[in-house]
Amino acid sequence: MTRVLREFGEDKLLAQVFPRLNRNSRVVIGAGDDCAVVKFRDAKDWLLLKTDCVVERVHFTKETSAHAVGWKAMMRTLSDFAAMSGIPEFALITLAIAGKKKASSVGELYRGLNRAAARFDVAIVGGETGETAGPTVIVVSVAGFVERDRCILRSGGKANDDLFVTGELGGSIRGRHLRFVARVDEARWLTANFKVHAMMDLSDGLGTDLPRLARASKLGFSIDQRALPLSPGCSIQQAISDGEDYELLFAISPRDRMRLEKLWRKKFPKLPLTRIGKLNRQSAISDQQLPRGYVHFRQRR
Amino acid sequence: MTRVLREFGEDKLLAQVFPRLNRNSRVVIGAGDDCAVVKFRDAKDWLLLKTDCVVERVHFTKETSAHAVGWKAMMRTLSDFAAMSGIPEFALITLAIAGKKKASSVGELYRGLNRAAARFDVAIVGGETGETAGPTVIVVSVAGFVERDRCILRSGGKANDDLFVTGELGGSIRGRHLRFVARVDEARWLTANFKVHAMMDLSDGLGTDLPRLARASKLGFSIDQRALPLSPGCSIQQAISDGEDYELLFAISPRDRMRLEKLWRKKFPKLPLTRIGKLNRQSAISDQQLPRGYVHFRQRR
Repeated sequence: MTRVLREFGEDKLLAQVFPRLNRNSRVVIGAGDDCAVVKFRDAKDWLLLKTDCVVERVHFTKETSAHAVGWKAMMRTLSDFAAMSGIPEFALITLAIAGKKKASSVGELYRGLNRAAARFDVAIVGGETGETAGPTVIVVSVAGFVERDRCILRSGGKANDDLFVTGELGGSIRGRHLRFVARVDEARWLTANFKVHAMMDLSDGLGTDLPRLARASKLGFSIDQRALPLSPGCSIQQAISDGEDYELLFAISPRDRMRLEKLWRKKFPKLPLTRIGKLNRQSAISDQQLPRGYVHFRQRR
Repeated sequence: MTRVLREFGEDKLLAQVFPRLNRNSRVVIGAGDDCAVVKFRDAKDWLLLKTDCVVERVHFTKETSAHAVGWKAMMRTLSDFAAMSGIPEFALITLAIAGKKKASSVGELYRGLNRAAARFDVAIVGGETGETAGPTVIVVSVAGFVERDRCILRSGGKANDDLFVTGELGGSIRGRHLRFVARVDEARWLTANFKVHAMMDLSDGLGTDLPRLARASKLGFSIDQRALPLSPGCSIQQAISDGEDYELLFAISPRDRMRLEKLWRKKFPKLPLTRIGKLNRQSAISDQQLPRGYVHFRQRR
């Protein structure tokens, strides 16, 4: 890994397709960040929009309880709201499912969706059910808001910023990926008390997601791998590559470091906050010693 | 068909699951109408939200061009905005697709989505791509607005209202279902000039959709089947049952009939507007002589 850290698959697809997507005058941030940011009529706050999906045999198995699948499908999208310091408010569900499965599992699935939504006072305001001959697909689309001065993008990182992550990394597949709680409260506390420069949620693994944040900020990064907060029993490699952590990664001035660490311990005594490295002026396409995380549609070479 | 006009499948599923969905204080209309209607922060207008999906082998075949699939997927959701007299503004796309198909068709699919969005100045502000081993699923979620005094629900119909439909019914499967234009402009014109009491778009066929509107309005209906505007070569049965017409069905006072018909002909000379019957005080669960339209998940008896 002394060569360029290239990203294949979804990022490349997006880079080729998304610049040509239709826009209009109300779009603040289109595709590419955790949520889309748009102006809604005469409202002062911005409207945030996000959609995400979970697919049978990719994000869950036939053995996963329908309730857990519903919880995960909802929380994944809410995690993207946390990443922007946004408040999720309304969710729409689309379910493509085999006709024969419906009766036995749709109710449980919706109970899981419902419970996860209720955790953040999100209303489920619509649901479409379509039939498919294939694996179940659950799409959760959420609308919400963020105050203009509290909206945190991936692109705002500054050289010399400290990089922090919440929680522990790696091993999510052992169970956490089905029962995590999106870091909405933590993100809102951060932006209520600090000037966070850039933020995102870790869904594909630090090895994939950190380069995205750095690239969006047009910066490089350095990481102290020994500092990474490892989940019990996980290696550094796993912490970097497993993915599905749904923790926050954010960049903040080193001037805020001491106050942040002190106030965090007081506010969230059970949740680790770890400084893992820094943003710097190296080229974003750099030779960081960082194995890659999970990438959808990895291209064959 | 002298017995109760029962609805099975999706309607029944929704009736059982949706009353228990989590709500919050900002929800005006949750699941059940064409779009959800919610309050957004301090905005005067209402926020409309809608999601819909098209599934391979159900809504299109392997032979359908990816561009046409994209167009249809977008227009279906925009048609639900027309149904509320809403203006669609922002769309999110979720694609579950087999990895091997991606390169050849995702670009064309997005061009179709894009062109349909551009027709109504809708920005595509996000897209997620997931891998599936099964049929392609395309989910389009749209946000937009409607002025509070122009939001038309299914439930506002009054006894003795005239029932009108736009365009012609039946035979959509021969091609129109892939190239229709959502009746957004027509709906906006209607609510700018008339007091429309209830409205919806015809997606499952008049035989399924009209009873939904009547039931929502707690009324019955009578139809003059000989008055139905048949697509060329279609029978009355096809006009009632084929589905995928994506025309508007609306209820309006008979006092407005003459002015409506006159102004419509002048404004939309190429698009028929047909009075097909009336709402009445009969029980909504009535013995109307109306074969059923297409129903998802028809229950086996």
